[in-house]
Amino acid sequence: MKIFVALACLLAGCLAQRPHPCESPPLLSGALTASTQNEKLWVYAKYLYDALGQRMRLFEFGNLDNQTFTYDFLLLYKEHVMYEINHHNRTCKKIPLKVDFQPLGISKDASLLGQVIVGSSSGPGQGLLVNTWIGDLPNKEGKYMSTVTEFGCIPVSVAFQTKQYGWMVFSYFNNIIGISDPDASTDEEPIGFFSLFHRKN
Amino acid sequence: MKIFVALACLLAGCLAQRPHPCESPPLLSGALTASTQNEKLWVYAKYLYDALGQRMRLFEFGNLDNQTFTYDFLLLYKEHVMYEINHHNRTCKKIPLKVDFQPLGISKDASLLGQVIVGSSSGPGQGLLVNTWIGDLPNKEGKYMSTVTEFGCIPVSVAFQTKQYGWMVFSYFNNIIGISDPDASTDEEPIGFFSLFHRKN
Repeated sequence: MKIFVALACLLAGCLAQRPHPCESPPLLSGALTASTQNEKLWVYAKYLYDALGQRMRLFEFGNLDNQTFTYDFLLLYKEHVMYEINHHNRTCKKIPLKVDFQPLGISKDASLLGQVIVGSSSGPGQGLLVNTWIGDLPNKEGKYMSTVTEFGCIPVSVAFQTKQYGWMVFSYFNNIIGISDPDASTDEEPIGFFSLFHRKN
Repeated sequence: MKIFVALACLLAGCLAQRPHPCESPPLLSGALTASTQNEKLWVYAKYLYDALGQRMRLFEFGNLDNQTFTYDFLLLYKEHVMYEINHHNRTCKKIPLKVDFQPLGISKDASLLGQVIVGSSSGPGQGLLVNTWIGDLPNKEGKYMSTVTEFGCIPVSVAFQTKQYGWMVFSYFNNIIGISDPDASTDEEPIGFFSLFHRKN
């Protein structure tokens, strides 16, 4: 009888499984777009994300106040610096990075808004189960809404309120687990063929 | 040799398969949210979609200019009428429907923006292959951007420009192919238990 009760509880627990806050895989590569409510800023970027080393690489193409731009950023959160790499001018600018590293995923104080299927569950390959969470930004700066996949905790979108742009939405796509070229997320300066033979000693 | 060339062409054709405009399944049920750039309107709705009969049913809950509302609409495009059903007051208002039926999916004159995976292709159940298309609204009223799944042509989102609200975004989810309760998309007036025995002759 005790075993029956235990099994019934286990079954009830399994059936009642609710989504939980989660951390995204520590190594991710992919692409994202950022768009803003007031249409002042729009960005497309390829990204490399390394939560183990607390670093990111962003290859950006965008439009700010009707001016297009391209940027190549390397963000080293542990060292609180970022590098702006200009391939055209062959320059690299070192900039203080004041924010702390924020791992991708859902923080533990977020509230579940709901679980839905994007697309359809009626056929194979037609749908994706995702969880959407909401919460408050630090320092009561506004709200955020974050969607990740149920399986894998892969980022789908993050929207948050900003003073400068109104709502800002990041949409992630073409994400793969891992980083195909670790070199690209480690080098603190651009390396050409010759620099491989002329490294600083 | 001819067979080899034919096979090579076939292979090249298969490898080079580009997404094509598509029509969504003629019967769909699901849910959607509509949100607007100027934040004046926000709607959550359950929908029934019947492209064969050119009709839709919308059970809406929303917020317009900081006033919440609930609506139950039946849209009969062939007959150019819609019905606003008020369950609380047990009334049904007949309203002319001036727009033509627009099947869900991608119209033939749309331009492909790109094909991406929402989520990730690194693990099972982690990703969804979608195609995003852009085009001009009728009468040059602005642009639209529409995303559907590669497999099944299930609607994911539609964004378009409006004069009243700026950009308006419809996000579809929990879609299933078919209509579980055909009654709900056909009845032109609400039917209670007694009306089953007191139908007009």
